[in-house]
Amino acid sequence: MTETLQRQVLYTHRYHLTAAQCNAQCELAPAQLVQQIIEVATEHADALGVGFERLQHDGNLWVLSRIAIEVHRYPRLLEDYSLTTWIEGYNRHFSARNFELRGHHGEVLGYARTIWVAINMHTRRPADLSGISYIADTVTDYRCPMSVQGKIRPADPPQIVHEYRFRVSDIDFNRHVNSARYVELILNQLDLSAFDECCLSRFEIEYKHEAHFDDMVEVCSAYVGEALVTAITKGDTVICVSRTILTPRKKAQD
Amino acid sequence: MTETLQRQVLYTHRYHLTAAQCNAQCELAPAQLVQQIIEVATEHADALGVGFERLQHDGNLWVLSRIAIEVHRYPRLLEDYSLTTWIEGYNRHFSARNFELRGHHGEVLGYARTIWVAINMHTRRPADLSGISYIADTVTDYRCPMSVQGKIRPADPPQIVHEYRFRVSDIDFNRHVNSARYVELILNQLDLSAFDECCLSRFEIEYKHEAHFDDMVEVCSAYVGEALVTAITKGDTVICVSRTILTPRKKAQD
Repeated sequence: MTETLQRQVLYTHRYHLTAAQCNAQCELAPAQLVQQIIEVATEHADALGVGFERLQHDGNLWVLSRIAIEVHRYPRLLEDYSLTTWIEGYNRHFSARNFELRGHHGEVLGYARTIWVAINMHTRRPADLSGISYIADTVTDYRCPMSVQGKIRPADPPQIVHEYRFRVSDIDFNRHVNSARYVELILNQLDLSAFDECCLSRFEIEYKHEAHFDDMVEVCSAYVGEALVTAITKGDTVICVSRTILTPRKKAQD
Repeated sequence: MTETLQRQVLYTHRYHLTAAQCNAQCELAPAQLVQQIIEVATEHADALGVGFERLQHDGNLWVLSRIAIEVHRYPRLLEDYSLTTWIEGYNRHFSARNFELRGHHGEVLGYARTIWVAINMHTRRPADLSGISYIADTVTDYRCPMSVQGKIRPADPPQIVHEYRFRVSDIDFNRHVNSARYVELILNQLDLSAFDECCLSRFEIEYKHEAHFDDMVEVCSAYVGEALVTAITKGDTVICVSRTILTPRKKAQD
């Protein structure tokens, strides 16, 4: 491993939360955090030489398979905060990448775990990553004290159902629905007062199939214990499943 | 005027367009440009000492009344670009603030004009800005070669109608619907192919009333000449009106 790579085992992006970016609680919106997690992952992969361009060379691309976040306080209006990422594990088919979210004073606000798989851009089948096995050298055991994501089973019957048709503003540069947009649709199942009273303390999502412009989907949620389990489905196809846990704000920060 | 103020007559924010931020055309989305226009206006007002905090001191706040943008090419994937803003005019009740969008090589990509009014945060009536008359010293005649925004009359009967209920992800830190979100809803009246073939060469919006969480609105559009005229209405109340002009991509860049 070159010295440059060694220095980049941990990669940090610093942010500043402007008023225009705040949600109704004057905080970083969870979907915006997911967007920034994807952004920082992309930047780090590029810096390590295993980004989109390198994979494209072999006809492959990275696809985000899962995200789990655990946050006890979100960055606030005008706060400087940072996202640090590192690779926890890697094999021929996927990479596990973690994140640490820190606030203005450097205090840890939360963590995230993501799983990325490489697929062949033509067959859409799992790709073989052994050509870039040197990324294994960047794996680190930097601490991520949150549990890994479990299997999520859609709850049946659903208690909250909304229909939605994907429009122009929902589509990303891959011509699929933006990964962060699903997070918005899922959290939109709840009322504004839920987020005034509670903090989204844990959120997990598993992306199963891609949705496209003009697809009509159903967003179906039900409480299973303390978690709101949601599935976004297009006909019989499950696009993604998620688990949402809200914690009263006072308690979340203890 | 102090030397510091003089230096800040023009204020520039530099951006880099990451993949996660791109739209389906691998460009900066027009709604994201509107979001950044608001962001840069806020930063400049803060730098001049006439930002949200200064107005709050008198019980007032800035409200965005109108935006017009004219762009012949949008920033592309991984492009460095910049937004420069300045105050064109100012009186007791409103300020006219312009913007210049430049691409990677410093070439001008487009312009924007905005009108901001100050209102009393309790009565929601126009506020008197004479207490901060020193901002008149920062007015400059820097060139903005695009026409000012005209009056927009909703077209009747509408040809394209969609209903929408505002959800959690649509609400900003003021507890109103995010100004950029209206732009998305308006452009969502069209198909993805329209933006593949054409560039949004001119867009004008006038904000008339505030919408809130759970409000149900109708988005109604009709072509008037070359322009798509859209009104977002809640019952008999017009929330905003806009005029959208698309130009075939080849022609837009000539």
